[in-house]
Amino acid sequence: MKVSRYKKEDDITYALGATVVMEYLNNCPDKVKGVILHPSFRSAETIEKINIICSVNSIPVTTEEKPFNILSQKENCFVIAVIGKERGHIKAGNHVVLVNPSNAGNMGTIMRSCAGFGILDIAVIPPAVDHFDPKTIRASMGAAARVRVEVFESFDDYRSRFGTNNIYPFMLDGSTLLQDTKIEGNFSLVFGNEATGLPADYSKIGHPIRIEHTDNIDSLNLPIAASIALFAATKDIFSKEV
Amino acid sequence: MKVSRYKKEDDITYALGATVVMEYLNNCPDKVKGVILHPSFRSAETIEKINIICSVNSIPVTTEEKPFNILSQKENCFVIAVIGKERGHIKAGNHVVLVNPSNAGNMGTIMRSCAGFGILDIAVIPPAVDHFDPKTIRASMGAAARVRVEVFESFDDYRSRFGTNNIYPFMLDGSTLLQDTKIEGNFSLVFGNEATGLPADYSKIGHPIRIEHTDNIDSLNLPIAASIALFAATKDIFSKEV
Repeated sequence: MKVSRYKKEDDITYALGATVVMEYLNNCPDKVKGVILHPSFRSAETIEKINIICSVNSIPVTTEEKPFNILSQKENCFVIAVIGKERGHIKAGNHVVLVNPSNAGNMGTIMRSCAGFGILDIAVIPPAVDHFDPKTIRASMGAAARVRVEVFESFDDYRSRFGTNNIYPFMLDGSTLLQDTKIEGNFSLVFGNEATGLPADYSKIGHPIRIEHTDNIDSLNLPIAASIALFAATKDIFSKEV
Repeated sequence: MKVSRYKKEDDITYALGATVVMEYLNNCPDKVKGVILHPSFRSAETIEKINIICSVNSIPVTTEEKPFNILSQKENCFVIAVIGKERGHIKAGNHVVLVNPSNAGNMGTIMRSCAGFGILDIAVIPPAVDHFDPKTIRASMGAAARVRVEVFESFDDYRSRFGTNNIYPFMLDGSTLLQDTKIEGNFSLVFGNEATGLPADYSKIGHPIRIEHTDNIDSLNLPIAASIALFAATKDIFSKEV
């Protein structure tokens, strides 16, 4: 199977590693254009599962070493899936909105937490890191196969589509503490760039929230802040369900 | 200044990048054995700050390129500090306990969250990743200069020193939900390995807690779980202080 170093303009991307590949095969086999096994991959059980799903869905499977040299020199990776990119649309409901996220690994870790807390729709406001980057997909541990991501032209563009959502921008100087804020309705949890946070004018939108921390640090890591917010926003749902 | 690729058995480690170096110089200049500036480092303000602190503390400063080639080929890094390792002792109070953590970046991200939520003492139960690894220090964004880390022989060894702490092991099958558990007293938040979690027998210790998530994912990322726990355990302290 022909592969080449990933580029943003390609219409395919790559899922690296058995866990991630299985998430795609189990959740959206229609997006999988092919699966490549490393000649020294020895997990008979996983290979059998892959072969069954690929056979049912007419997905080609090859065994060859070269694609691994091109796509994953450094990693302990024995399975690659070629994934077709589809520009997604998010659904009405609860959202995470990422304004100018810049790090592929962080984007993937946020996808994993979103899937974990049942928030399956992520809006992205550019400029932003490529959410199809193989590093994003790998960091998501396969959650990229479950969440819907839509890139909007601007935050106004996003709001014009989801105007009835309650907006909660997370800011270092947010006016209320997370633990003192009731997050309700259909909600949008909004986070800024890793280094610079949200632009100051987001403090005039909706209900700005602060995750209080000591001045030992400048800020929390972005996926950490987003995940604490997701936990707080969804904990009552879980308490009720259990 | 002579540097070599970091090895665990060395009695020095390295802080890479201006932010991290400044944290060490501001918080524990006594641990800094030397500072190396890259010849193309242009931030006059930072260079002046470094020179003042190093002069006051008799820390040598050199400008040379070679150490950067050895220690940080890939990173956008213009300042390195040589840090003396000191085997630390944690203090009585609230702790995070990491049982068999295996990833250096995760360890650093946890240090950053611990510093952020004011929990400055981290116990480590081996086998464990080296908490002096430059990758850990870099991921901590310098919080490594603020937290105390102590490696214990075993969890029993840890408990024999801090027997009055309330123990909260975080487990996928913990008996109570985090949002329904009052974390009190001097507390120890205990987390297992990234891939395998805590051994099953920790469910008989203290008050096992579960951070509920959907079955979309196998588990939360370790620093995410630890940070959600830190937020929940400290939020009443912050609410009162504000």
